[in-house]
Amino acid sequence: MSEPVQVSDPAGLVARGAALDAADELAPLRELFALNEGSVYLDGNSLGALPRHVPERVRDVMVRQWGELGIRSWTESGWWTAPERMGDRIAPLVGAAPGQIVVGDSTSVNVFKAVVAAVRLAGQDRASGRGPGSGQDRGSGQGPGSDEGRTEVLVDATTFPTDGYIARSAARMTGCRIVSLAPAELPAAIGPRTAAVLVNHVDFRTGRLHDLPGITAAAHEAGALAVWDLCHSAGALPVGLDAHGVDLAVGCTYKFLNGGPGSPAFLYVAERHQARFDSPLPGWNAHADPFAMADGFEAADGAVRGRVGTPDILSMLALDAALDVWADVRIADVRAKSLALTDFFLECVEAYAPPGRVSSPTPVAHAERGSQVALRCPEAPAVMDELIARGVVGDLRRPDLLRFGFTPLYVGFADAERAARVLGEVLAAVPGQVAPGRR
Amino acid sequence: MSEPVQVSDPAGLVARGAALDAADELAPLRELFALNEGSVYLDGNSLGALPRHVPERVRDVMVRQWGELGIRSWTESGWWTAPERMGDRIAPLVGAAPGQIVVGDSTSVNVFKAVVAAVRLAGQDRASGRGPGSGQDRGSGQGPGSDEGRTEVLVDATTFPTDGYIARSAARMTGCRIVSLAPAELPAAIGPRTAAVLVNHVDFRTGRLHDLPGITAAAHEAGALAVWDLCHSAGALPVGLDAHGVDLAVGCTYKFLNGGPGSPAFLYVAERHQARFDSPLPGWNAHADPFAMADGFEAADGAVRGRVGTPDILSMLALDAALDVWADVRIADVRAKSLALTDFFLECVEAYAPPGRVSSPTPVAHAERGSQVALRCPEAPAVMDELIARGVVGDLRRPDLLRFGFTPLYVGFADAERAARVLGEVLAAVPGQVAPGRR
Repeated sequence: MSEPVQVSDPAGLVARGAALDAADELAPLRELFALNEGSVYLDGNSLGALPRHVPERVRDVMVRQWGELGIRSWTESGWWTAPERMGDRIAPLVGAAPGQIVVGDSTSVNVFKAVVAAVRLAGQDRASGRGPGSGQDRGSGQGPGSDEGRTEVLVDATTFPTDGYIARSAARMTGCRIVSLAPAELPAAIGPRTAAVLVNHVDFRTGRLHDLPGITAAAHEAGALAVWDLCHSAGALPVGLDAHGVDLAVGCTYKFLNGGPGSPAFLYVAERHQARFDSPLPGWNAHADPFAMADGFEAADGAVRGRVGTPDILSMLALDAALDVWADVRIADVRAKSLALTDFFLECVEAYAPPGRVSSPTPVAHAERGSQVALRCPEAPAVMDELIARGVVGDLRRPDLLRFGFTPLYVGFADAERAARVLGEVLAAVPGQVAPGRR
Repeated sequence: MSEPVQVSDPAGLVARGAALDAADELAPLRELFALNEGSVYLDGNSLGALPRHVPERVRDVMVRQWGELGIRSWTESGWWTAPERMGDRIAPLVGAAPGQIVVGDSTSVNVFKAVVAAVRLAGQDRASGRGPGSGQDRGSGQGPGSDEGRTEVLVDATTFPTDGYIARSAARMTGCRIVSLAPAELPAAIGPRTAAVLVNHVDFRTGRLHDLPGITAAAHEAGALAVWDLCHSAGALPVGLDAHGVDLAVGCTYKFLNGGPGSPAFLYVAERHQARFDSPLPGWNAHADPFAMADGFEAADGAVRGRVGTPDILSMLALDAALDVWADVRIADVRAKSLALTDFFLECVEAYAPPGRVSSPTPVAHAERGSQVALRCPEAPAVMDELIARGVVGDLRRPDLLRFGFTPLYVGFADAERAARVLGEVLAAVPGQVAPGRR
């Protein structure tokens, strides 16, 4: 086990990687990004790479729009309407018609808006005494036999933790209770008690792509709403929010959309729900006439009512610049390349990794795979440290997962082959638990 | 009335402005800011001016920290801890010891955290069924005679509207009701039903500075909590959060702190409340061990539990750079200059403005004045347009208020004199309702 086992011809894989890159119509996009020469960046599912032109655009926002125009920029530079304008730019990437997405706040804050609003749309908000189920009792802790209305929020038990934490708070504050289930168990569990279902489109650990059309349909059949977290799918694969009738969705913009560290998240409110979208965070930006500065709140029309406070302009307009790279890109092409990349990477790992050292929880079936590959390995912390030291940048999800994100706009097939090859070398160098005699 | 009435010698005011500027120890700070030559910027209470060095610092964040270091910057560039680090930088400006402020989210989102947390700290959160007052009934609409616990949130009726909107949502979601009162009426109204009082430190319209020590003490005497909005006082005057025993506070960073358009807000949680601070937005950044990515939420110690989602790094580090201008500045000196500036401006307006055309709702008493002057004028929209056209940048609050913010780091006495002089000229040129024959 001291040498990588060569189950296929390495040179063949190198050649195939080069050939695949040569045939890749998205390959020229790589030049739009600042990437470190000599390293392979497979962490775009955590922090997307910097589009080269962004710094200059942000400089203009600072020096000219802020420094010279000052407050005039709220109108003249379009600052005030940036949240909905950015939303409309993201919309085609996630299959939404215009007017349904606003950008702003963090994903966590948007999860709160979406879950509370979904519970309210489902007619259940007993804590506020406004829902039809409003009575003397509360949902929490009650048995399923009581006449309690829609008091359950079903949450993907494998979701990114913040979604679960925030959903629990949203449930607590609307008189609901949380039921945590694996996504596959959700359709059968959705019932007359269910107000809303919150699911992550792609599992952040395994890269498993969940069944958005199926779970959404199951929710609707039971009279519940479906809320999707698109953090790991927006910009990575076709989402089809409108086509599949999703009710509400959130997502971040700093992964596959390359908006920069902590760039603002987005909120999708399907048009049919907008008139009744009742935000728990009705800030002045959601007001029908914000500058009337009226005492009473009157919600704006449209997705704008998902806004809260003053938008964060530097980050918002960095995102604006970053989204330019999508101008001529079809998301279907991104998906095709993503699957080809992850297929090829898995094949290379199979070829280069010593047998028995890693296993992948990432589904083999394309329909079940997002745009990342996870490899389980007991020595994952040491392996990832060494991978990064050798220029292959993935990340670690404790305790034992190596994550490799494949961002088709700037990752190529030769990158995939090299990453797998270096992984094989690192695994050979890092003692494995399967060979305790080596320790 | 076609000429400004000269109640004092204009040349004398010009000379006095020059002399005051010459004696001003803060005057050199002006060079740190990008200001348009030929105009007077009196809108720093809406959007603070650009510190000249910020664009270069943000460029470094983009090009080196994001573009080159990538995700390593979460640790190596200190991104992850920026919210509490920025909080500790703001702390001395508002009279807070370290460890009590975190930066992030918008003011509106922080108002929600603060009001909900205050209600919970007051032992009242019936909607969630956790507070000691939890019973079958809810506060909304109940008479004061019922045994309902602390079910009232008192809100400054003159506050910036978003505070009122958000407080109403927070009350709705915690089983409380809102009582809106003028700040002067609050101390007498605080009682055994009061969970929390939310007050704006400075009235955004009139510039009136409210009695933070007195209202806070009145709240405490009644067993309630005081939540302060410092948007118009942070960086403008001494706040004394710790000294006056404020419980929770929020504030923005894009006015007197010059963080840039929509830069993140801050949240103060007094140390004595941190262990019981129960956020309605318990995102993963508030977790004791965020990267454990555990299913269950366990709140971090300290003000960090006021964090929510991934911090917005570009804006956060633009603020970091912007805060450098405060390195050698004492807030007491800022306050002294602010009062001298607004005194002088009011004196110049008295000298230059045609009689009867404007009146100021801004208090004359120093103890009751923030860092802005408001002038009421029936022709305010036309007057502000013309002022801006002539290089005096204030802003309008509908229907009839002209606002002039005085930011001592970069506004001088000659600016104040010039602004008043141009205002006099504009008022002479814009027909006034007091002289209908001129229309």
